[in-house]
Amino acid sequence: MKIAALAGGVGGAKLAQGLAKVLGSDELSIIVNTGDDFEHLGLYISPDIDTVCYTLADKANVSLGWGLKDETYKALEKIGQLNGPTWFKIGDSDLATHLMRTQKMKSGETLTHVTRDFCELWGIKNRVLPMSDDPVRTFVDTKEKGLLPFQEYFVKHQFELCIRGFYFKGIDSASPTKEVIDAIKTSDAVIICPSNPFVSIDPILSLRGIKDILKGKNVIAVSPLIGGKAIKGPLAKMFREMNIEPSVRAITDHYGEILDCLFFDQIDQVDMALEEHSCIILRATNILLPDIESRIRLAAEIVEFLKATNKD
Amino acid sequence: MKIAALAGGVGGAKLAQGLAKVLGSDELSIIVNTGDDFEHLGLYISPDIDTVCYTLADKANVSLGWGLKDETYKALEKIGQLNGPTWFKIGDSDLATHLMRTQKMKSGETLTHVTRDFCELWGIKNRVLPMSDDPVRTFVDTKEKGLLPFQEYFVKHQFELCIRGFYFKGIDSASPTKEVIDAIKTSDAVIICPSNPFVSIDPILSLRGIKDILKGKNVIAVSPLIGGKAIKGPLAKMFREMNIEPSVRAITDHYGEILDCLFFDQIDQVDMALEEHSCIILRATNILLPDIESRIRLAAEIVEFLKATNKD
Repeated sequence: MKIAALAGGVGGAKLAQGLAKVLGSDELSIIVNTGDDFEHLGLYISPDIDTVCYTLADKANVSLGWGLKDETYKALEKIGQLNGPTWFKIGDSDLATHLMRTQKMKSGETLTHVTRDFCELWGIKNRVLPMSDDPVRTFVDTKEKGLLPFQEYFVKHQFELCIRGFYFKGIDSASPTKEVIDAIKTSDAVIICPSNPFVSIDPILSLRGIKDILKGKNVIAVSPLIGGKAIKGPLAKMFREMNIEPSVRAITDHYGEILDCLFFDQIDQVDMALEEHSCIILRATNILLPDIESRIRLAAEIVEFLKATNKD
Repeated sequence: MKIAALAGGVGGAKLAQGLAKVLGSDELSIIVNTGDDFEHLGLYISPDIDTVCYTLADKANVSLGWGLKDETYKALEKIGQLNGPTWFKIGDSDLATHLMRTQKMKSGETLTHVTRDFCELWGIKNRVLPMSDDPVRTFVDTKEKGLLPFQEYFVKHQFELCIRGFYFKGIDSASPTKEVIDAIKTSDAVIICPSNPFVSIDPILSLRGIKDILKGKNVIAVSPLIGGKAIKGPLAKMFREMNIEPSVRAITDHYGEILDCLFFDQIDQVDMALEEHSCIILRATNILLPDIESRIRLAAEIVEFLKATNKD
């Protein structure tokens, strides 16, 4: 069984980790959002790629939700003393990742190539694929400050500002990589991980040709909401600011016709109309993924479901 | 009394620290070699500027002779794990200096400007002046491997290779900064610190116009040799490889007509011919500078001497 998983940061990384334990190394490709990528202190930073890789390598700082475990922040402290920016918390070990990636990309390597090499050195067996090697930059349109680069909204302003919309700069001229297209085309199913649909999954879906390929595929999403709330991050708040009730229906409506099945949490209610008239299969289960056991359990449940229902 | 001191790294920084304690903040400008500067991991690194600044700010790692005290090396360790270069040992706190400097220079600031700002933030009252804002890169011509960038010879190969000569790439098109020229022109005397003449002082002296200005100045050098040996580094070995006996005479011959006085160590012998026929004043004293007391003592002795003998 070949699976292509679409993922953003923390939530996506959790399910990806479960899938990596359940599937063979050749069976899983993880396609990761690069819309959050940005340049900071002259370094090319790819937050979602790092979160996915650090999680798969069991190096992630689980309590913070970003960066590496057992991290120190001496460089950051000294950067602050030199009046440099400290709102984006780069740890000393994490700096090595950014320095090395930046150097390699400056010398002409693609993000895809660098990510493949880092995965090998970190002992990650599955393929982690940046959605594109072309620059796509997510901007958030806010009532208070207009368009802001995503990391400024998310980290600097701690997503306190009110959302009006999203803009993926560069999306029209960006191509999904050959590796991404191949991974989706050759997959038996595509799993949309429980990442933020607006800022983690939509950049991937907005790349040229991706939705067309997905229409012919069995696409399963795991809801990023539990009890109408996001585990972490601004998703429920974003839905409300867009005048949408954060609910199971909000997720099925958002993904629309590409979606064949949604795994949602058993504590969530599904309105009758959705259940009766939608052609999307709705599966209630436990989608809280606090530890490796729960991630493996949900991944196994999805794989079982796919084996039983695959279109092909 | 206005003093312009010419300095390289460790040895120069020691005397500069003593001079900074003895002279007022407006009385001392330290002109620092930038021939050792290089790019590494995408960072602009200025080893002599850093050694001088860290020493003046009492942040230097005295036992290592480079970098900061209380330093950690987590980023370096992870860079190694990603197969990156680890021969140049950058600490986590030191990284902040290089990251911030690189960013500022990329945004168009000069090394002179960045150094001034860092000095202010580090509480350094004296002016630390890079010799030039134009790139000058010291290469060492070795018997074994031909021309090598200085840091590769010095750090990577631990100066084990045999020297044939020196080459300062860019020296013909580099200008001393306005600040450097002003500091020398307005000085009552110039002190050549006990730095390596070949690779720390010669790049400064080789800049367009510098020797001409120095000819009209009272120039005092402190010998970088004690008992025919360098305290640290390859100077005695370099002299021998150039078929010159490392001695007091080697230093006076090296600096030639620009030199008015040499402070050398009391354990060194001066040959009779030099003493009798040279017009250079030779002063034997204790030039070993292991601690702040010895640095202040030598600095005070030189300033006393200058007050008594100044040409003007």
